[in-house]
Amino acid sequence: MQCVERVQSTPQNEPKISQVNPVNMGIEDMEKREETLFNETFDVITEKLTSNINPDLKRVSDWLKKVLVYNVPHGKKNRGMALVLAYQVLKKNKKLDSDKSHQARILGWCIEILQAFFLIHDDIMDQSLTRRGQSCWYKKEDVGLIAINDGILLNSCIYSLLKENFSKEPAYSQILDLFHEVTDLTIKGQCLDMLNSTPDMRSNPAAFTQDVYSAIVKYKTAFYSFSLPIRLAFYLVGIVQEEVHTKAEEILLKFGHFFQVQDDFLDCYGDPAVIGKVGRDIEEGKCCWLFVNALKLCTDDQKKILLDNYAKEEPAAVAKVRDIYDQLNMRKVYQDYEDASYKEIKVLIDSFEYAQQVPLDVFNWLLKKIYRRSK
Amino acid sequence: MQCVERVQSTPQNEPKISQVNPVNMGIEDMEKREETLFNETFDVITEKLTSNINPDLKRVSDWLKKVLVYNVPHGKKNRGMALVLAYQVLKKNKKLDSDKSHQARILGWCIEILQAFFLIHDDIMDQSLTRRGQSCWYKKEDVGLIAINDGILLNSCIYSLLKENFSKEPAYSQILDLFHEVTDLTIKGQCLDMLNSTPDMRSNPAAFTQDVYSAIVKYKTAFYSFSLPIRLAFYLVGIVQEEVHTKAEEILLKFGHFFQVQDDFLDCYGDPAVIGKVGRDIEEGKCCWLFVNALKLCTDDQKKILLDNYAKEEPAAVAKVRDIYDQLNMRKVYQDYEDASYKEIKVLIDSFEYAQQVPLDVFNWLLKKIYRRSK
Repeated sequence: MQCVERVQSTPQNEPKISQVNPVNMGIEDMEKREETLFNETFDVITEKLTSNINPDLKRVSDWLKKVLVYNVPHGKKNRGMALVLAYQVLKKNKKLDSDKSHQARILGWCIEILQAFFLIHDDIMDQSLTRRGQSCWYKKEDVGLIAINDGILLNSCIYSLLKENFSKEPAYSQILDLFHEVTDLTIKGQCLDMLNSTPDMRSNPAAFTQDVYSAIVKYKTAFYSFSLPIRLAFYLVGIVQEEVHTKAEEILLKFGHFFQVQDDFLDCYGDPAVIGKVGRDIEEGKCCWLFVNALKLCTDDQKKILLDNYAKEEPAAVAKVRDIYDQLNMRKVYQDYEDASYKEIKVLIDSFEYAQQVPLDVFNWLLKKIYRRSK
Repeated sequence: MQCVERVQSTPQNEPKISQVNPVNMGIEDMEKREETLFNETFDVITEKLTSNINPDLKRVSDWLKKVLVYNVPHGKKNRGMALVLAYQVLKKNKKLDSDKSHQARILGWCIEILQAFFLIHDDIMDQSLTRRGQSCWYKKEDVGLIAINDGILLNSCIYSLLKENFSKEPAYSQILDLFHEVTDLTIKGQCLDMLNSTPDMRSNPAAFTQDVYSAIVKYKTAFYSFSLPIRLAFYLVGIVQEEVHTKAEEILLKFGHFFQVQDDFLDCYGDPAVIGKVGRDIEEGKCCWLFVNALKLCTDDQKKILLDNYAKEEPAAVAKVRDIYDQLNMRKVYQDYEDASYKEIKVLIDSFEYAQQVPLDVFNWLLKKIYRRSK
């Protein structure tokens, strides 16, 4: 199983987090409890967002309920749960007076709603057919292109929830600014990805450099998947200094990069039964970690084969690309990258200069979560 | 000419605003000057939004520049100019120390950007071909469905501009909340309109009631076209009390309703050379003022003809609908509505209870602008 291999690949000379860090005692129970509470909160926010006293908008509320229920709660909820759990880790360390667990859950759902908004639009733009094991929203018979409006309707729900639940918080403006900033960067990442994926870029090596890859991952994924949830948890526990956020973000973007590399590796080498989908990065000609690194390591002859056969639907073409990957021993290249990346992030955490404000547990816990993940 | 007829239709017993209101002296010169300055400001904000110091995002900035230049500045700019001019009218009356004219122009462009975002998405959802005398953005050869992302990219620009230019203003949170609220209501209006325009609603009289019409106009158009610009001008001059905004909004939504009725009338009876387009409300089966009111006034036989021939492309069908409109004397029905509406709004303005905080000139000026408009 891929996930077992992956855990074993954690460098042997690194002690297990749970052995050195007593705060992690019982953390799995806490995680389970929080997940249940998080799921329950979805019904609360759906009710809030759709119980309209304005009769003019009754039909819109009924429709919005369908949009929310179909698109928001069926993912892995990694991002929402990252916020909720980071809040619990921080709360324990900071010994806070007031409990903002419920608010953390609402913020967690705001991130999940943000992602649902992106995914609805991405699926239309990519003309995808399925998402999270069901038909894409825009593909449903009674939906179609109104899905474009449904996407922005979801985004708009975020600000209704924030106003209702956070407008009295001292960090309200900062929370709003952070959502705006991260949304802006993610949209720009999507733009970068799309400008890089036009038909004329299909077999152009310039579309598959390390720099292009890193930029797309950073903007399209890392900000909203890692920086956003953890920085929101910071605001909730009163960590508001800009320089702390800036430095923490540097580490969190490394997490984001590593997480995406894992995703790309699993797309090709993961077990579909475990990751829940059949990878199609080769067929779709994605600027993904394996292809970018294969292009760096290959001979000129191999490069020609890679470029000639990438972004093609034919199984024979896909097999040729995979064959070159095997010749280049990409599994081993990935394992080495994983080890090096783990060490690099560990060094960054240990040298984080605001350990007094931010307990390092929050980073160590997240690192452990990611290195463990099987899907 | 339609516009001349329309000015003459202003009730004869109402004095002309400019005769009774000395503050309007020279207002046309001021309007011309402000329009020039407003147009110049577009280049400033485009430069700000696209001069990126981050090399990763250079391609995105170049693309964003194209999106902005193609989609934002080619409309009538009614909404942006309404804000800019309302600010000038308010400033003159309030005798303010600091000049925020430049900030008013930036806010005005934020509204124009908001509209461009809605229009890009609307055109995709309606599968329209042209907009403002040019090809719809998504229809351009090198664009396509990336236009969905370009729409939300424009929306995101609004919050970058607000943060850069207004984050130190005392009303920053209120300005943000107002943009969020109005955006939310407009998206809901679009949702209502689309749910009302599904194929099975095409010849269903329930889709064309006065209540349905009023709700769509209010949410889809009136909030962002009238309430947003004038309330933003209020914030700029320090009018921040919630109850003042609530009462002003009631009047502004009436303006919005009236404005849309005009639009609907002109779509059928306006001169295409003046309004800049050939009306297609009948062909497209729009829930528009003429059809809604014709259905109210007609006999059962006429109703059958109206419903059988509405929402059809064939010129013969369109002619039948127009023929019933003529039988019902819809031009006269409209003129009567216009007179009654003018009087009703005038009464509302004169009984506005916060005249001390808000000089009534701002409403009277806007009323005059609308009753004058020829396109």
